[in-house]
Amino acid sequence: MHLMKDGVKGSQRPAGLRASRVADTEQRILDAAAELFTKDGYAATTLTAIAEAAGVGHRTVYVRFGTKAELLKRALDIAVAGDALPIDVRHRDWFETALSAPRPAERIDALSEGVAELMERAGALFAVARQAEPVEPLIAEAAQRGREATRDNLRAFVDKLDADRLLPGGSDPDWLAATATLAVQAETCLLLRQTHGWGTKQYRAWLRRTLGQLLGA
Amino acid sequence: MHLMKDGVKGSQRPAGLRASRVADTEQRILDAAAELFTKDGYAATTLTAIAEAAGVGHRTVYVRFGTKAELLKRALDIAVAGDALPIDVRHRDWFETALSAPRPAERIDALSEGVAELMERAGALFAVARQAEPVEPLIAEAAQRGREATRDNLRAFVDKLDADRLLPGGSDPDWLAATATLAVQAETCLLLRQTHGWGTKQYRAWLRRTLGQLLGA
Repeated sequence: MHLMKDGVKGSQRPAGLRASRVADTEQRILDAAAELFTKDGYAATTLTAIAEAAGVGHRTVYVRFGTKAELLKRALDIAVAGDALPIDVRHRDWFETALSAPRPAERIDALSEGVAELMERAGALFAVARQAEPVEPLIAEAAQRGREATRDNLRAFVDKLDADRLLPGGSDPDWLAATATLAVQAETCLLLRQTHGWGTKQYRAWLRRTLGQLLGA
Repeated sequence: MHLMKDGVKGSQRPAGLRASRVADTEQRILDAAAELFTKDGYAATTLTAIAEAAGVGHRTVYVRFGTKAELLKRALDIAVAGDALPIDVRHRDWFETALSAPRPAERIDALSEGVAELMERAGALFAVARQAEPVEPLIAEAAQRGREATRDNLRAFVDKLDADRLLPGGSDPDWLAATATLAVQAETCLLLRQTHGWGTKQYRAWLRRTLGQLLGA
């Protein structure tokens, strides 16, 4: 659950047919990058291999995306959001529902479903980002901002339940926010996969149940 | 919370004074390694720098420990256990107490305290191991065995509560074991530090409270 879309290259694109071709080329590069990063790992994947797989020249990849780290970050941003629109997680429909549905159970359903779908799209690239974090300051910084955005989003989720008087009596919003944040961090989904071999489906069921227990819903 | 001590070098040590000198030299090397790994990161730390900091020849480090990855693994094993004795977490006093104290609250206290102390000793080296995991198969394998050992230990913790009829009515031991395992994994303590800036003291308080909520104690 990341805030994103800051500093995305190509935001001032030419209009019309040419813009459509540019977007198509970028999409092919991003698809090839996501596939190769996931298959071969971060260190073993080169910009040249990505260019070949996308059917474009090495220079095209370089001009459009710069470095391997920037290409990974852009691929991850798109996988997290589900599309290339400049709308962060906080303003996606599913998160808006999690903040405003009438009953706590509906909010938890929307949050669990949204987070699980996000991990379904982006889990493999989060695993790649974790490989890259020790060696790529750009990725380390993006990952840290992602963790903090998730923390702030879940804080908003708990505070809104509190403001709407939907928390169980005696709840501690600070503990709830910290614990719910842990449950939805990308690292947690990856860790549960490593620990139990869980796929996204099992993660979704666990997340729904855990948030339900935390919030008595 | 790792099982460990398999394949530890130097387990057949010479007796008497010479053994004491050997152990002393190894300890100096391990202390230097832990300090440099933590300060400079895994990639930037060399066996030569460790040898210099320990005041021994490069060859001594090589003969005693082999590779940089083996040295990190050995340093981490000792930090996890708290000493060089061949006793895994499962058979440490604090974990035995967590399995057998008369009341659930005492078991949770022992577990929270033991895990928090383990992370106090080993947290910095777990962070180094996470840097090394993508590039060192030995560390990746040890980390994976550690995650699985933690899972098995927490399963034993929940099953023993169940066998002793100390779980709240209607509990689901599978969900409890999975959720308690997540709470005590090394990755979780590191993630909470990254997300909230928590030190070990705040982690211990959160862990005590979270296990208490899970187990109604």
